[in-house]
Amino acid sequence: MNLWEKNIRKVVPYIPGEQPNKSSVIKLNTNENPYPPAPGVRKAKRDFDTDLLKRYPDPENTVLVKALEEYYRLDEGQVFVGVGSDDVLAMAFMTFFNAEKPILFPDVTYSFYPVWAELFKIPYETQRLDENYRLVPEDYHQENGGIIFPNPNAPTGIYEPLDRIEDILKQNQDVIVIIDEAYIDFGGESALPLLNKYDNLLIVQTFSKSRSMAGMRIGYAMGSKQLIKALNDVKYSFNSYTMNQTALYLGVEAIKDDEYFKKTIERIVATREEAKHRLKALGFHCLDSKTNFIFATHPDREASELYEALKTADIYVRHFKAPRTKNYLRISIGTDQEMEQLYDFLERLLDEK
Amino acid sequence: MNLWEKNIRKVVPYIPGEQPNKSSVIKLNTNENPYPPAPGVRKAKRDFDTDLLKRYPDPENTVLVKALEEYYRLDEGQVFVGVGSDDVLAMAFMTFFNAEKPILFPDVTYSFYPVWAELFKIPYETQRLDENYRLVPEDYHQENGGIIFPNPNAPTGIYEPLDRIEDILKQNQDVIVIIDEAYIDFGGESALPLLNKYDNLLIVQTFSKSRSMAGMRIGYAMGSKQLIKALNDVKYSFNSYTMNQTALYLGVEAIKDDEYFKKTIERIVATREEAKHRLKALGFHCLDSKTNFIFATHPDREASELYEALKTADIYVRHFKAPRTKNYLRISIGTDQEMEQLYDFLERLLDEK
Repeated sequence: MNLWEKNIRKVVPYIPGEQPNKSSVIKLNTNENPYPPAPGVRKAKRDFDTDLLKRYPDPENTVLVKALEEYYRLDEGQVFVGVGSDDVLAMAFMTFFNAEKPILFPDVTYSFYPVWAELFKIPYETQRLDENYRLVPEDYHQENGGIIFPNPNAPTGIYEPLDRIEDILKQNQDVIVIIDEAYIDFGGESALPLLNKYDNLLIVQTFSKSRSMAGMRIGYAMGSKQLIKALNDVKYSFNSYTMNQTALYLGVEAIKDDEYFKKTIERIVATREEAKHRLKALGFHCLDSKTNFIFATHPDREASELYEALKTADIYVRHFKAPRTKNYLRISIGTDQEMEQLYDFLERLLDEK
Repeated sequence: MNLWEKNIRKVVPYIPGEQPNKSSVIKLNTNENPYPPAPGVRKAKRDFDTDLLKRYPDPENTVLVKALEEYYRLDEGQVFVGVGSDDVLAMAFMTFFNAEKPILFPDVTYSFYPVWAELFKIPYETQRLDENYRLVPEDYHQENGGIIFPNPNAPTGIYEPLDRIEDILKQNQDVIVIIDEAYIDFGGESALPLLNKYDNLLIVQTFSKSRSMAGMRIGYAMGSKQLIKALNDVKYSFNSYTMNQTALYLGVEAIKDDEYFKKTIERIVATREEAKHRLKALGFHCLDSKTNFIFATHPDREASELYEALKTADIYVRHFKAPRTKNYLRISIGTDQEMEQLYDFLERLLDEK
């Protein structure tokens, strides 16, 4: 071993979902939107002058921040944008979780949380979801160094109503509470109205799911001006210019077209509700998802076995190996046509036995 | 004060150069390239299908990494790409500078180094450049936790020949040495040939200067497979998908067109050499730059006063307030026409006395 190796940070990196490079694949494994971005995005791309790329982008991301502040009726200084919600969340961990006490998050949740905690050497404790994979607000009444959870939760898809969320906020006014609302547009009610009451609340959302822009890497946080300023200060200490010009200009168009946005969500929600029936008819038990994916288990078949079988048919879904989730598949909602191919294949597969 | 404020990371953020929002401005303050990106970049933009944005980008950035590996004749696994060289350098600080001993860098250098060190709580010691702003290799023979310096240096523009660089590497084989070559294409010789001999050497470069792509945010690191893997592991623990699809596809085209690249560099170097004569004729003392900027001081006028006067005329240059650099202006090389306007204004201004 070289002596310099001892200076390298030890990490167990997050493993992202597969990105197969075949166009024939039915890709239901990373919760992407099956529909393209709003038509305005294509036009903005056409109009974008690549000669402008010689200049640095606006470090304050003004056009995009303003568009979001207007859309959500927030004041100036209440929105932070970053390179996907993972970048926003990583910056938020670095900025807000600097206590000696452990931060708290659920045992079944977005698998990046423990990865960031370890990367930044933040102590953490997980709180067990109940037997129905529901969050237990009382578990978050203990002393802690900060709290984070997704609502709806991932990979369960379960949404917690706002009164349960507010219970957690009421009990935790001395630490920063982050609600990761990556999937909120698919049927839940955002905690946004609570921002007026709790200046220690940060809400994180993304363009990657409901706005069909996973490939553009745009995430954002909303909170009190004080929290947003602290996030920006850390961002300016890390990399002043995180959002490239195309993300800024095309991102604005994805916000503007609210009609397209709502229509797309409606289609995905309709497909999801149909999927619950169809998967149930095939013998699956599905958690009640308010997201663009379904977390499903089958009493007769190992999830790992189903996952592998689907993959051989070029149908990619997600399978996690953690103890409480290893017998579930996380199936992203695709187009109706893609979902029919999924049901057909599963039907044949489950008949085979 | 709210109790939660104590959990916020304290930082003194880096202040980027001004990005004035007027098209009339002569912008010589952030070392951008005055010429647009290669023509292939425009074509790639035209051909890019925005419908693809619904999918996550390739987390391994394969097309861009491969293009760079081929261009620099490196093996597979020797290139890492990030959101500008600031992102690459921030990741490198986090990944490689985890010793108890202080890292070393020059006292006059890129002002982000102490910012990252403080952000990540890395101990550091600066080494004084000599009276001619030259690096003293012997200063880096002491025990340390890692070394970083730019070559050519910023904001001085001074290039250190490879034998001086190799002296530092020879004396520091037990720590990781990072050479920040943001400006190397403008006349210096890259340390790239030393990669074969030193597997603890990381070289960082950028598309923001010589490749006219500051607005696209692309930086990269080259090193042994072991160093690149460590960087990727940390990147996957921070944000799996950092490079958006447009950066990947348009970035490749900026690498491909080597003829355009060389022609652009030639023009900038010619303008820089002319600038040295013209500024000298105006009474300035210029350090011998091998970059796309000139670091200049005037015996009769305060740099801060010149900076302010230029700004009132919509000519933006950079002025730093640190003790050893406060009487210098850093002037980016613009087009010949822009530089003529600079000389004209300075001539009138210096005559005024």
